[in-house]
Order: sequence, then C-alpha cells, then structure tokens
Amino acid sequence: MTLISLDLNEIYKLAYDAMKSNGCDEANAKALAQIIYSAERDGSHSHGLFRVPGYVKALRSGKVNGKAKPIVESLTSSVIRVKGGNCFAPLAQKIGLKKLVAVTSELGIGLLSLTEIHHFAALWPEVEYLAENKLVGIACTAYMPSVAPAGGKKPFFGTNPIAFSYPIPGEDPIVYDMATAAMAQGEVQLAARDGKRVPAGTGLDINGELTDDPKKILKGVLLPFGGYKGSAIALMVELLAAGVTGEQFSYEAKENDNGDGGPPQGGQLIIAISPKLIAGKNWVKHSKDFVARLSAIDGVRVPGKRRHQNRLNNGPRKINADLIETIKSLLV
Amino acid sequence: MTLISLDLNEIYKLAYDAMKSNGCDEANAKALAQIIYSAERDGSHSHGLFRVPGYVKALRSGKVNGKAKPIVESLTSSVIRVKGGNCFAPLAQKIGLKKLVAVTSELGIGLLSLTEIHHFAALWPEVEYLAENKLVGIACTAYMPSVAPAGGKKPFFGTNPIAFSYPIPGEDPIVYDMATAAMAQGEVQLAARDGKRVPAGTGLDINGELTDDPKKILKGVLLPFGGYKGSAIALMVELLAAGVTGEQFSYEAKENDNGDGGPPQGGQLIIAISPKLIAGKNWVKHSKDFVARLSAIDGVRVPGKRRHQNRLNNGPRKINADLIETIKSLLV
Repeated sequence: MTLISLDLNEIYKLAYDAMKSNGCDEANAKALAQIIYSAERDGSHSHGLFRVPGYVKALRSGKVNGKAKPIVESLTSSVIRVKGGNCFAPLAQKIGLKKLVAVTSELGIGLLSLTEIHHFAALWPEVEYLAENKLVGIACTAYMPSVAPAGGKKPFFGTNPIAFSYPIPGEDPIVYDMATAAMAQGEVQLAARDGKRVPAGTGLDINGELTDDPKKILKGVLLPFGGYKGSAIALMVELLAAGVTGEQFSYEAKENDNGDGGPPQGGQLIIAISPKLIAGKNWVKHSKDFVARLSAIDGVRVPGKRRHQNRLNNGPRKINADLIETIKSLLV
Repeated sequence: MTLISLDLNEIYKLAYDAMKSNGCDEANAKALAQIIYSAERDGSHSHGLFRVPGYVKALRSGKVNGKAKPIVESLTSSVIRVKGGNCFAPLAQKIGLKKLVAVTSELGIGLLSLTEIHHFAALWPEVEYLAENKLVGIACTAYMPSVAPAGGKKPFFGTNPIAFSYPIPGEDPIVYDMATAAMAQGEVQLAARDGKRVPAGTGLDINGELTDDPKKILKGVLLPFGGYKGSAIALMVELLAAGVTGEQFSYEAKENDNGDGGPPQGGQLIIAISPKLIAGKNWVKHSKDFVARLSAIDGVRVPGKRRHQNRLNNGPRKINADLIETIKSLLV
C-alpha cells in the first residue's frame, strides 16, 4: 500500500472539493469537510477520506440532497428535532447541537432527535462538542443490518455505534465512540482491502460459521461485541436511534435504500446532561480525582487519549495513494 | 441444597418481617419487601431473599436508616433529585419515579438523581415501571470496586449494572438489567455457595491470573464483559451514577464503608424518555413491528421474556432452606 503525505488543509480541501463539485452547497460541503478533516487529524482513518467515494455515490444517485436546509423544531422545552431533508448528518448536527447545549445548560438534560439524515461518520465529534461545553454526551445511530443479535446467524442490527463523553474542565474530556459490533464495518472493510485477518469472534461467513477472513464476514454477518450483553447494548442503540426518533430501523433502512453504496437514510439520538446542575459545585474536582485514579492503574488507558494526542500533531498525514486517486477522479 | 416451597405472600411477609423487626418503619419495610417479592416472583433469585441478611447487617450497624424520609427536590423542570437520607434504594425510587413519569410525560425527557441511598437490588423494577408508563428507561448504579478496567488487574469499577426498558403498549415491554461485569457479583456469590465453576473470562484470582473458581474470583477481581468495549460501558455507568449525581464513585464507597457486608452508600441515575412525544403518532406500530421481526429470528430471545413468563406463575417458589433459616434467625 503506497502512502502519500497530505497537509491537514489539503485533506480538508480535497473533501470539500469532492462535495462541492458533486452537488453540495457551501453549508453542506463545509460541514462534511470539517468532519472528514477532524477524523484524519485524530487518526480515525475509517471515518475520514475513506468515506468520500460513498458520500459522492449518494449525491450522484440523488439519495442525498447536497443543498438540503435542515429544519429545527422544539418538540418540548427539552427536546429538539432537526429534520435534515436528506442532508448528510454533519450539517443537521451542527445546527442541532448548538441548540442542545443551550437547552441542557439551562434544564440539566436535553435530547436532540435527528431525522431524515444520512450518517456515515464517527460519532465522537458530536459528543466531544458537548464535552467542550461542559456537558455529558450520549449519541447513538443505527445503520444497515450487518450484525446478528446474540443467538442468531442473520444480520438484523446495524453496527449501531454508541458514543459517550464526560467533560473534565481544564483537561481532555473522556470520549469514546464504538460500534456495538465486535468490529466496526469500516475496520472490517479496511482489513479486507489490506488483505489482513480479523480476530476470531468478529463475525460469521455466509453459512453461519466463524471465520477470520474479513471478506467472508462482509458477505456473511458481524457478531455483537461481548455476547448477549453486547447484543443488549446494540438493541438499546437501535431502539434509541430509530424507535425513539421514529426513523428507520436498520432493516427498514436496507429495504428502502437504493443500494448506491452511500449511507442510507436514518436517525440519530443525542442526549446531553449537565453535571454542574445535577452534581453541584464540587463536580469538577470530583471528576478530576476520578480520572487521576483511573489513569494511575497499570495497563489502563483513558478513552479518547490517543485521539487527543494525535491531534497535537499539526503535520501532514499519510493517506492511501489509491484512495487519493479515486477521490480526484470524482472531482467534476 | 434443600429447597422449600414458599407462597409469594410468605416471601413478602418474610422480607417485611425481617425489615420491620430490625428497625425499618412501615414505608421502608414495604418498599423493600415489594422489591424482594418481585425478584423472587420473576426468578431473579440473586436479588431476592438472598439479599436479606445483607440488608439486616446494614440496619444493625446503623449504616442504613430504616426510618429515613427521603426528600424530593426539583433541580430544574426536567431534573428531580431524591436525597434518601441513607434509606435503602426502593423507597427513594418509589417516590422519585412517580415524579419522573409526570415530568417526562410532559417534557419528553427527564432525569432522576438518587443520592444518599443504599442499592442492593436489581435495576429492572425501576425501568419496567417507566415502561409501564409508556416511557423508555435507562438506569445505572455503581457499587464497590470489584471489576478491573480493561488492561488492568485491580478492582476499580463496581459491577456497575445498567438497565434499559422500551415500552410496547399492549405487549410485554423490552427490559434488561445486566452487570457490566462479565458476571454479576450476586451470581458469582451464588456459584461460590453452590460449589459451581464459572466461565473462563469471568475474573482473575488474587495474583491477576484467569480462574474459573468463583471463590478465588471473589478474593481477586471480576473482569468487564466484552473486553475494552464492555469496560467503556462500565466507565459510562460509573460516571453517570456517581459523577453526574455527585455521589460516591465505587472506590470512594469502599473507602467510606463500615464493612458490615450490607450495601454501601451510593447514587443512582435514571433517565426517562417519551417516544410518543418524540417519534410521534406511529410509534406504537413501528415498535411492535420491530419486536415481531426480532422475535422471528431463529435462536434470538427478546430480553425480559423469561421474567415475564415466570411472573405468570402465581404458585409457590422454591427457596434455599438454609437461607430461610438464616432469615428467621434474624427476626427479633
């Protein structure tokens, strides 16, 4: 695999140009380019430029509206809904999260329901934004059926990621974002592309047998992480992201998708909580002491640390040369 | 192990008498007896009468106040706090949940923070109550350090259970309640008592080595379910139950506990969400269709089904004879 160095600005521009020249207006292109830039900056390659060809497919097929103007509604004083009008998720998030911060900073808890969006990115940017505003964040989205519920052998759940953040004012927040699949779909795709094996337990082949070949798993089914308990978390994500928002469950997303390879329509649910309003004055010290204790345990890493360290490097990033060529060929 | 049949009423009365004769007033004794009765009725033995000796120890040592009168406060229009005054959790829950239902049914999302409580029971009764009121429920509590974060070998997290419920009007709700430990502490204790082995991966012995002997794990440390992803869920539970409520983290609970063997002081956080207000009119059919599809998958069981089936049986329950003798010896 040949790697090429790109500056962070070049990464942003490449993503922006790909969106702009395929039908996105300024607002949509900027929101998406920012998300791709952040992913590459933090080392989340499976959610960076790797996603651009899929985004372009969705624009070209007309499934995604690159000029969509999301509509914000207050369903109650604590609940905001943003109807994306079939935009990519980042623009709807950008608009909704700002309002979610305002609501939660006043009421202690708030909920953001995103509908008519197409989510194809990581979820940590959403919850990290909440943490930067001194709020706890929980975000969930469903996707296309690719994971078998515990006991089953057929795809039903999406890879159903859940992201969580906890603010530590003056320090990096605790942030994680993980598929409830044993391995994220994007990681399995990268392993397949690079000819690597994956750990046993990642998934089943088309006959329902365990395999460590990512190509066979992509034709078969992923397993949830952690057996029936992980399956229960995947179920929660599915019900929050689609049941509560009223958007499509993973199986509906598949049934109604045009199969262009881009992200299907779906929903996202984001909960924000203010520890300041609930725990009271001592919450910052209390939280800092906790992180100090956790970090001091031999062998333990605080979630989010690696990304935050990657971010300190402003230098160029190594990007797959074939991917850059592919994206350049999509500029029209 | 000798088993004795007890009617459900006899189970309730045994629990009630144990509480009443050890310093509980009427309200505290009733709330606790109801929780123990529900656990035995549904087959959750590790949270039923098995817990009574521990409850009594906490009353006798004075750690728990059996006559506590919990205080309810509205921190904001969406956030309720109940200060338990060192009661057992069920009484504080009973008072707080009623208000949480009212708030959430109006505002779409609500949060209940329980502090100064002693939680020693299952969490499904809390979230099932929310589901019976057509709300989604998420509940978390921390405990004493007994689980090593992924990568570590020393206890830091509690068994940190998370419970989730989703209402399906006209049908049984989806409900689960699980420790984020590979196995609940109560289950390990039962296995140790009954001389059984536990699955590999449940925990480490005192030297940090894997073992399937529950007695060695009780002296060593439990592992989280599902590796680093399960550890991330355990971390979320710890931060919600103690960080957001401002109550004791698991390690603080241990440091400040009197070691009487009863439940330490801690917090509990409960979130409720109204799908009706957020998803809109079609939510009931949408949710029913989802459960029908999930149930139809070969080998898959919908969480909560077994408990709800056990509940249909009004007959007597088989209880460990030694346990009954122990509890009777605690009646004064």
